Amino acid sequence: MALRTPDEYRAGLRDGRSLYYRGKPVDDLSSVPELQVAVDHAAIDFELAEDPAHRDLAVVVDPDSGAESSAFYRIPRSADDLLARCRLIEATTGAGGTVVTLIKEIGTDAMFALMRKLAGEERERAEAFWRHCRDGDLAVAVAQTDAKGNRSVGPNEQEDPDLYVRIVDQSDEGIVVRGAKCHTTSSANADELIVLPTRAMGPDDADYAVAFAIPIATDGLSLYVSAYSGREHNEFEFPVSSRHKLLETLTVFDDVFVPWERVFCFRQPELAGPLALTFVEYHRFTAVSYKLPLLDAFVGTAALITEMNGVAKAGHIRDKLTRLVTYSETVRALTEAAALRGRVDGDIAYPDPMTTNMAKFTFATGYYEAVEWLQDCAGGLLVTGPSGDDWDSPEVRAVLEKYFRAAAPAEARLRVMNLISDLTARDLGGYHAVLAVHAEGSIEAEKMQILRAYDSDRAISYSRRLAGLD
Amino acid sequence: MALRTPDEYRAGLRDGRSLYYRGKPVDDLSSVPELQVAVDHAAIDFELAEDPAHRDLAVVVDPDSGAESSAFYRIPRSADDLLARCRLIEATTGAGGTVVTLIKEIGTDAMFALMRKLAGEERERAEAFWRHCRDGDLAVAVAQTDAKGNRSVGPNEQEDPDLYVRIVDQSDEGIVVRGAKCHTTSSANADELIVLPTRAMGPDDADYAVAFAIPIATDGLSLYVSAYSGREHNEFEFPVSSRHKLLETLTVFDDVFVPWERVFCFRQPELAGPLALTFVEYHRFTAVSYKLPLLDAFVGTAALITEMNGVAKAGHIRDKLTRLVTYSETVRALTEAAALRGRVDGDIAYPDPMTTNMAKFTFATGYYEAVEWLQDCAGGLLVTGPSGDDWDSPEVRAVLEKYFRAAAPAEARLRVMNLISDLTARDLGGYHAVLAVHAEGSIEAEKMQILRAYDSDRAISYSRRLAGLD
Amino acid sequence: MALRTPDEYRAGLRDGRSLYYRGKPVDDLSSVPELQVAVDHAAIDFELAEDPAHRDLAVVVDPDSGAESSAFYRIPRSADDLLARCRLIEATTGAGGTVVTLIKEIGTDAMFALMRKLAGEERERAEAFWRHCRDGDLAVAVAQTDAKGNRSVGPNEQEDPDLYVRIVDQSDEGIVVRGAKCHTTSSANADELIVLPTRAMGPDDADYAVAFAIPIATDGLSLYVSAYSGREHNEFEFPVSSRHKLLETLTVFDDVFVPWERVFCFRQPELAGPLALTFVEYHRFTAVSYKLPLLDAFVGTAALITEMNGVAKAGHIRDKLTRLVTYSETVRALTEAAALRGRVDGDIAYPDPMTTNMAKFTFATGYYEAVEWLQDCAGGLLVTGPSGDDWDSPEVRAVLEKYFRAAAPAEARLRVMNLISDLTARDLGGYHAVLAVHAEGSIEAEKMQILRAYDSDRAISYSRRLAGLD
Amino acid sequence: MALRTPDEYRAGLRDGRSLYYRGKPVDDLSSVPELQVAVDHAAIDFELAEDPAHRDLAVVVDPDSGAESSAFYRIPRSADDLLARCRLIEATTGAGGTVVTLIKEIGTDAMFALMRKLAGEERERAEAFWRHCRDGDLAVAVAQTDAKGNRSVGPNEQEDPDLYVRIVDQSDEGIVVRGAKCHTTSSANADELIVLPTRAMGPDDADYAVAFAIPIATDGLSLYVSAYSGREHNEFEFPVSSRHKLLETLTVFDDVFVPWERVFCFRQPELAGPLALTFVEYHRFTAVSYKLPLLDAFVGTAALITEMNGVAKAGHIRDKLTRLVTYSETVRALTEAAALRGRVDGDIAYPDPMTTNMAKFTFATGYYEAVEWLQDCAGGLLVTGPSGDDWDSPEVRAVLEKYFRAAAPAEARLRVMNLISDLTARDLGGYHAVLAVHAEGSIEAEKMQILRAYDSDRAISYSRRLAGLD
Repeated sequence: MALRTPDEYRAGLRDGRSLYYRGKPVDDLSSVPELQVAVDHAAIDFELAEDPAHRDLAVVVDPDSGAESSAFYRIPRSADDLLARCRLIEATTGAGGTVVTLIKEIGTDAMFALMRKLAGEERERAEAFWRHCRDGDLAVAVAQTDAKGNRSVGPNEQEDPDLYVRIVDQSDEGIVVRGAKCHTTSSANADELIVLPTRAMGPDDADYAVAFAIPIATDGLSLYVSAYSGREHNEFEFPVSSRHKLLETLTVFDDVFVPWERVFCFRQPELAGPLALTFVEYHRFTAVSYKLPLLDAFVGTAALITEMNGVAKAGHIRDKLTRLVTYSETVRALTEAAALRGRVDGDIAYPDPMTTNMAKFTFATGYYEAVEWLQDCAGGLLVTGPSGDDWDSPEVRAVLEKYFRAAAPAEARLRVMNLISDLTARDLGGYHAVLAVHAEGSIEAEKMQILRAYDSDRAISYSRRLAGLD
Repeated sequence: MALRTPDEYRAGLRDGRSLYYRGKPVDDLSSVPELQVAVDHAAIDFELAEDPAHRDLAVVVDPDSGAESSAFYRIPRSADDLLARCRLIEATTGAGGTVVTLIKEIGTDAMFALMRKLAGEERERAEAFWRHCRDGDLAVAVAQTDAKGNRSVGPNEQEDPDLYVRIVDQSDEGIVVRGAKCHTTSSANADELIVLPTRAMGPDDADYAVAFAIPIATDGLSLYVSAYSGREHNEFEFPVSSRHKLLETLTVFDDVFVPWERVFCFRQPELAGPLALTFVEYHRFTAVSYKLPLLDAFVGTAALITEMNGVAKAGHIRDKLTRLVTYSETVRALTEAAALRGRVDGDIAYPDPMTTNMAKFTFATGYYEAVEWLQDCAGGLLVTGPSGDDWDSPEVRAVLEKYFRAAAPAEARLRVMNLISDLTARDLGGYHAVLAVHAEGSIEAEKMQILRAYDSDRAISYSRRLAGLD
Repeated sequence: MALRTPDEYRAGLRDGRSLYYRGKPVDDLSSVPELQVAVDHAAIDFELAEDPAHRDLAVVVDPDSGAESSAFYRIPRSADDLLARCRLIEATTGAGGTVVTLIKEIGTDAMFALMRKLAGEERERAEAFWRHCRDGDLAVAVAQTDAKGNRSVGPNEQEDPDLYVRIVDQSDEGIVVRGAKCHTTSSANADELIVLPTRAMGPDDADYAVAFAIPIATDGLSLYVSAYSGREHNEFEFPVSSRHKLLETLTVFDDVFVPWERVFCFRQPELAGPLALTFVEYHRFTAVSYKLPLLDAFVGTAALITEMNGVAKAGHIRDKLTRLVTYSETVRALTEAAALRGRVDGDIAYPDPMTTNMAKFTFATGYYEAVEWLQDCAGGLLVTGPSGDDWDSPEVRAVLEKYFRAAAPAEARLRVMNLISDLTARDLGGYHAVLAVHAEGSIEAEKMQILRAYDSDRAISYSRRLAGLD
Repeated sequence: MALRTPDEYRAGLRDGRSLYYRGKPVDDLSSVPELQVAVDHAAIDFELAEDPAHRDLAVVVDPDSGAESSAFYRIPRSADDLLARCRLIEATTGAGGTVVTLIKEIGTDAMFALMRKLAGEERERAEAFWRHCRDGDLAVAVAQTDAKGNRSVGPNEQEDPDLYVRIVDQSDEGIVVRGAKCHTTSSANADELIVLPTRAMGPDDADYAVAFAIPIATDGLSLYVSAYSGREHNEFEFPVSSRHKLLETLTVFDDVFVPWERVFCFRQPELAGPLALTFVEYHRFTAVSYKLPLLDAFVGTAALITEMNGVAKAGHIRDKLTRLVTYSETVRALTEAAALRGRVDGDIAYPDPMTTNMAKFTFATGYYEAVEWLQDCAGGLLVTGPSGDDWDSPEVRAVLEKYFRAAAPAEARLRVMNLISDLTARDLGGYHAVLAVHAEGSIEAEKMQILRAYDSDRAISYSRRLAGLD
């Protein structure tokens, strides 16, 4: 059990995995600049553990052996542990320039869920896998969302039976699975992959009720990396996305063999829903934790750019700043409350589901309006400004310096403008927005969970008493 | 130092105070039925202290003397004390049918503010007054909002100098004040009145920089009670407002003498703003605490009536229920967070100003939409239903029972319908709504405080780092 | 064929009808003050026809005979006719103090729908009834919404079969009906009552597929008048509701006989949905037409009170005024567009359904926020102000005049304040709000109609072309 | 006077103009692929005039001479002319894939404003310039927004006097100007440039009160083209932005000489505000006209993708579709109403300012929420989907076809998904969003104009009557 260095992490990715990018197989992530950006971004997780400023948050030392492990792998036992996990995720994402690293967050979300919902031998397998990952300081992705096909019918009713990942064979050694998962984040640059069911299932869906874990470099597993935002980004124009990036894959299982010790759920449809739900309970808490740096960046850039434009004192600007603060800080307060209201199930703590979902719902439903306020504060220069090449040309830069100064020098103003543009008005902006609505569960899913988790006794009995019914 | 009984409280109000109602002087509140409703409503405060179920929350026992006093008078020393105060206010208001009693809440808000902001002799006077009220278990109102006249100019620029309460004379014994305060809640049924400045003031406003306390039965002090919602209410039609009511007065000071030991601020304009602000810091926390039962009633009645109408499973109804839950529980979570983030100033704790104002702002700006959802859930019967007299007529009741049954018997359904109507679609509904926007400070005032109290360092320094400026 | 005078209308209501109010039978509407207010309010319709300023709008002169009839009875043949009808409804409601008179609007909405959807003998009966009403200058109510019982099941599945109005017998002379309708507006003070189905029906609902018309004074028909807002209102405090009021009834059919010439739909379930829908097409256009004076009053009172308070120039006030204007004028523009886009079906014109529903939806979903803006502009005095009795007392009035003046004298300011309070924060306010959401169809019903009426061809074919699919 | 062909337009741009792109001078737009996309996009204007399907809309034939000219140059004389102009702009932008061509729209907006506001010799100069452009079938850009510097102070108070374009010299032949304008759309690919003041000015700003027109190829005029979204776009991934693009420039006047016959406003500060305002009156009408295809694309792609995903019947999806329809069709109805309410000033018609601004305000303030609804309807694949290179690889395409099919084949679904992504979640999406808020005037400017243009007489006099004041 030891922490890995960033370079050890990078080296581990050269393992023969089957990757495709822009129509071609990729042998080595470092051969494609934008993929390398994603690897370097993920390596921040390992850098933080080495950073004295973050060690206390990021590293757990075993009191007996003195062995060190990543704090992401610490099983939460209390509200305080949940709060510490929130702070760790916030700090890591902050170092990631508002982009979560997601190579340990999501994997441990899944492991905690598996440990809570499984029993007997399956639970032992899950714990063994958790120890394996913790002791190897591994990067772990989770594939949950299936290809799904026609959303109006379930897994076993699709014309093509492979549209949800399913068991196609079994033997004394293990099982064989086929199908595909979508939107799998960080799989291309992870070491291991956990596969979970995406929804509740009925008896006819038994073939689809499967959960397991495999190394990324497994025969039959192919990752098709999305090219969204896949291009080289000039640092002046794209201060964040030039250095920070996630990779999503279409994750195809072409008769992949999984040994029994890595199988957590096998043809138990009644377990599919609870596993899916328990995972997202943790994962939505991870989500709201990692959104906090982005929200800080919204408030901070709005404050900076309005000051630099010379409009910070205007009434309507102050109104927008106040609304940005209220939005951002309400998400933060609800996230903290979700941790503080955390409860313990057996020996594992989990954040309060209603409060977690309210935090996520508040974030998601307020996001687009917050973008509007921020862009309104900044100005049209977000999409009409100069490029990094312009800035690098001494002749052009002189013109820009003369004409883009305001209540601040042109350079500072353009850098903040580009930051806002990068975060909200270009590819990364679209990515952040679509994630707000779709990642870690849809708005509709969050609404369903809020209502389900809300304990209506107090409100109903009080109302009955007021109405004179009790 | 001893607790008073409800009847002792009622008896104390017969003290020769100068009250006017509907154009006529009122010698005894009990002579006018709707005023008596307000007195009985306020008496709930004293009933709760006698109720074994609430004693722990409502009564403080001096560990040395064993003397008992109202928990409202406990000076908060910690976040836990603030949370306990929140629970006490919530419980009292719950017993008050969503209507706060406000005979100790607001007074102690003012006393805590005075004790925090005053020094020297003035602080001693404030403490003496606090002991006097606590030991006498008194009911205390606060008059803050002045008549104000033309809002585009300040106190000293009004055509009539009396539109803000001002000092017109002074002597060795004390001062003489003249003017009027508006919207003074519970003054008609309180024992004492605290007077505070309503806003920040400049050097020219020195005459208006005054704070003091007097008994309601003081020469020259006249209370003109508002007749809003002033009529007898049938219990079937008005389940809440038939039993619960607040009184507001135009509070006129016609050369009222105040002895020096009751004067807290005398011609110190620089103290006016801080006193006003510190008071509303506490008072907005009181406000969000007392809104919680109303929010519970919104959620609970929406759940009940949709079940009774047979529409609880419809998608759009579930959507509205979820939004009501999220609105209500976000205010609750922010209120709790305001207490938990409480800080100590000297030896007195206060709730976090930013979080308190966010809770109030969230409550106020979401209120009308919440009313819409609830009324949408209930149906048009809210304003077309039968009266209590109809229900009391056996002949008519038989018709109503036949035709107003749905997925519940007619009586239960009509009682819940009337409750919703009372809370949202009649006088009490209008009162709750206008209070949401105007009481304890306007929406604009809350916005200003959010921005002022927000510590922007984290967000700005993070944004500067992302932009490459630091 | 001749116009009736207001007094002829009043006299016609003394016809032995069976009315109940507050648990007791009422022989004569004029014996109960608040019922008399409603009759006098409805009489405005007849007053307008006599008023030279409105004659052109309100009266149609037969070019051949010179006979005069109410313009409400003019069958629309063109977009211009629809626009003229909109103006007439707006003018009548304006004279009604923001409260529609609804004694000819809704009846003609129903007649136009019957004439459009019926054929053969039934259409002749509908036309004969229309001529009867027009020539007699009659007041006509429409009962559509059934008692409904448990909303999760249909008419024929209710435990009590009478919860929707149904045919219980038939003979050569006519039919016999039993059941009850709710929320029937103006029935207590109308001459005739049209009964329409409330929803689409299936073959099993044949007994419930019935439409007909009867005089109010018909054996077995009993009207139970709602007491909502039923009290005497002081004119100073309640400038509108002291003079303007609608009556709603629970309308009970206790084996009522209807002769064949008054039966429009008899056991034709396939006709129930189209009749219901065609009626609301007209009726929602009536609705948005009669909302315009209320919207003007919102904008006008907001402008007046902010001027009087001395805050009209504040940035946030201008923001709220602008939003009120935009809300109000968007409803107006959509209402006009609904008329201008009117189409002709056979020989009867009807407003564009999508645009009509968008106007109604915009009105309904924006209403509560508009109330918030207006109340925010006005101030807390809306619910803490003095009564008419206070104003009538010379002693008290002197105090009010001194202390409630602002940038305007106290009287003008208090009158505008009371107007806003009456329109938004008391019984009439609750009535207007609940009507916004529930009257003339719910928000959900409007949404369904918008989507159904929207012609998606342009948008879809354009999108397919852009996507390279066509 | 004759129409030009697309190639004549392209050839005209090779005139020695001074362009910079990505830090380097550009001699020929066609040498840079993304600039060529913009030129080809603009050429759509000329293609439409040749297209039989659009000739009636796009071409005006002089009844006397038979000479043809672009319909953009037709001076509106009536509401019908305004409506025809709206239709022309909508059709051109529709052909432009939701991106306005803007090489005649904005220029004529400015010319109509100049002709309305100028008198005497200046008006003759404006008319001569209009004839020159019309007869030459020229492309004309407008530079209005100055560099502005510190927004908290005006033109003459900036530290650098050149931050607003100003007159630095004059002679018998003409004037010399210096400074810079921002966000100048289509200047890089136009023939002529009109320069207008950006705001109201005072006497001290006389040097800045200047309006004129010059050819793009004028000595001292340099255009620095923004590189936003400047890259080659694969057609499969970027169905719109691969073919449609606008160019914005920082437009620098380095002591540019303007002959008197091209000077429209010379040191007349009192004319600056009216010119700026009258221009935006026309230009906001242009704006809402050209937004209509984008709104259609929102509704159409939402309908297509939900059908293809198999979720079109879900309640929450229908809710979002309905809201998209209502948003889109409200903007359309207001735009039509702005034309139909058009008025004539002298002999030139203009759209109703209040209604135009309401249309623009409704568009701008609803835009981000509409994006949310559309992205919510579509799914996360918007930002995790495959690239054009993936699609072009037979091996990968087979996998995509298997796993991305839903209720439609993978290809159709991916094409619609990419269309939505292009319009909302990538560079063009950010461009559309920022334009919604900032182009043709800010939201605050629109609000100011709504309130200014609203005729409050009806509402105020009605409210006074209701309050008993008149």
